Amino acid sequence: MQALLASGEIGLDALLFTDLTDMRWLTGFTGSNGWVVVRSGMTTLGTDTRYGDRAEAETQASGVEIVALQNRAALQDSMIDAAGSGEVGLDGRSVSQAVWSQLAGKLELASVDSLVATARETKDEAEIERIEAAAEAADAALAEVEPMLLSTIDEPVTEADVRNELEYRMRRHGADDRSYNTIVASGPEHAARPHHEVQDRTIVAGDTVVIDVGALVDGYHSDMTRSYIIGEPTAQQREIYDLVQVSQTAGLETLQNGVTAHAVDSACRDVFTAAGYGDWYLHGTGHGVGLQIHEPPFHSQVSNEVIQTGNVVTIEPGLYRGGFGGIRIEDLVVVTSDGHRVLTHHPKQPFAT
Amino acid sequence: MQALLASGEIGLDALLFTDLTDMRWLTGFTGSNGWVVVRSGMTTLGTDTRYGDRAEAETQASGVEIVALQNRAALQDSMIDAAGSGEVGLDGRSVSQAVWSQLAGKLELASVDSLVATARETKDEAEIERIEAAAEAADAALAEVEPMLLSTIDEPVTEADVRNELEYRMRRHGADDRSYNTIVASGPEHAARPHHEVQDRTIVAGDTVVIDVGALVDGYHSDMTRSYIIGEPTAQQREIYDLVQVSQTAGLETLQNGVTAHAVDSACRDVFTAAGYGDWYLHGTGHGVGLQIHEPPFHSQVSNEVIQTGNVVTIEPGLYRGGFGGIRIEDLVVVTSDGHRVLTHHPKQPFAT
Repeated sequence: MQALLASGEIGLDALLFTDLTDMRWLTGFTGSNGWVVVRSGMTTLGTDTRYGDRAEAETQASGVEIVALQNRAALQDSMIDAAGSGEVGLDGRSVSQAVWSQLAGKLELASVDSLVATARETKDEAEIERIEAAAEAADAALAEVEPMLLSTIDEPVTEADVRNELEYRMRRHGADDRSYNTIVASGPEHAARPHHEVQDRTIVAGDTVVIDVGALVDGYHSDMTRSYIIGEPTAQQREIYDLVQVSQTAGLETLQNGVTAHAVDSACRDVFTAAGYGDWYLHGTGHGVGLQIHEPPFHSQVSNEVIQTGNVVTIEPGLYRGGFGGIRIEDLVVVTSDGHRVLTHHPKQPFAT
Repeated sequence: MQALLASGEIGLDALLFTDLTDMRWLTGFTGSNGWVVVRSGMTTLGTDTRYGDRAEAETQASGVEIVALQNRAALQDSMIDAAGSGEVGLDGRSVSQAVWSQLAGKLELASVDSLVATARETKDEAEIERIEAAAEAADAALAEVEPMLLSTIDEPVTEADVRNELEYRMRRHGADDRSYNTIVASGPEHAARPHHEVQDRTIVAGDTVVIDVGALVDGYHSDMTRSYIIGEPTAQQREIYDLVQVSQTAGLETLQNGVTAHAVDSACRDVFTAAGYGDWYLHGTGHGVGLQIHEPPFHSQVSNEVIQTGNVVTIEPGLYRGGFGGIRIEDLVVVTSDGHRVLTHHPKQPFAT
């Protein structure tokens, strides 16, 4: 951000960041309250006194100036001082109208798009390591929990049971937490909803089951989906599973530096359309993953983004229909200089019989 | 809100709510995307097509008009139509500057304080039942996990182990989730931080341990803290524990309809000050709990709020000092017409030996 300011390219004298993810990425500070001001040669982090010590410790490497004050108004004033005179860029989507109004009386504000969100799309080695550790925790948990699906015919388990075990076991495998609310969607209606919220429904023979699970390690997320068919699969269940598998493989094969996010989406979508299931595909093919679970780039038909080395993205086609249920297969993948590397390793074994 | 508008007291023609908690309280809808417009005789809820069916089902009782559209701009336009002409009240803290700017070109906006947050302070029976169910799940989980503290001398357990078991077991006792990130703060440094974040530190003899745990049931939170002394307590550990116990009892005895939140804070604080430990008390004495874990009223020296029947609040004094550790005792309490009723029942047994 210093270099961007100095280049004069954006024509601003300072930048103010109020988004906590931006703050963490810029400074390393992980607290739940803070603003960052970037101005020629100086980055200032303001937070409250709860976090003074932590901010000092976490930002040592980045050479950030810390201001820790208990009084909210005094803290805001000190950040206004740090921003100084001239035009100050601020993303109007990251701050409330009330706060913007307060600041506008004291600073010459200019609305800018989030500069950090764009920079964050390219992950460095340390970031990829954390995402990979998160993916490993989810792999290990799912390996332990998968047999529950097999045993539900004898000893009934619910969606909530499976979710509870997954989240508990990810932590025992090194995760700080779940990456998002784990999805366990089962049967003809629940599995037909891509964003189903877990209920106490018992999983039974004949169900399709979609399990979407990720872990959080040191602020970085993972994301993976596996789908299952409980008991003897029907011909249609086999057909749909195979189709999603083919689609997901096509998406993976497309993914490399320089391809468009639009082309990745098309690679998966075209398989469904050709088979006559285009209208069973209810969402985009994937998204970036990092300090946030959903971040750019987004693979979709309306995207104009270009995939680049260092992007970490999901490839997650699925087919859904009320009465049938649903099947989704999702991997998390890092784009490398010579192709890509899949970070989620749990096997794709659809049949729990 | 209809009655408030009709009264002319606030001098506005419509109200727009963009906060998800406000939305849930006003309509019953639990989705993660939605706006509500209240205008003479008509309440309109706008959300995206993912949530159309759920919104219809959840708002049946409240007679809300649902608009569910996939296109974001079209959805915003339909809410602008619903708000109509004249002055429209909106809380500038609940909407980003970017969205406010978009709306301001099409509506005559007036900044209002959150009217719902104030109304939400008074809970009805159905709300209290959910909070009580959440408190029961946390009670049950803590009863099961407490013996781990006792066994740590033989079989070491970490803060993270205790946290993991508590969150897992709350769900097994009917909770939808944790109410907040469970705090397990142990030993001379961690327990000295009121808002400690769990680490892998092993709990050992000589530690004070602060466990702050709550559950979530149907959107409603619970909140409870118990503290422990591991192994044979020192004279100072006994002294501090007893002092916090006396302070917490004093706070509970003060709590009733008509008392000020300031007086509740003073009742706890004065016990510490009189004993010479005033500067070991690092936070306010409590807060309201409901659809949010921290909501008004807040017990503090700067509060001018008056406690009323139907408030659900915490009473949570504590003492903290680096090198010693910390002790906090917290109950969740509903204010009734004839006093109050404590909702958190887990015993206060400080000694794990």
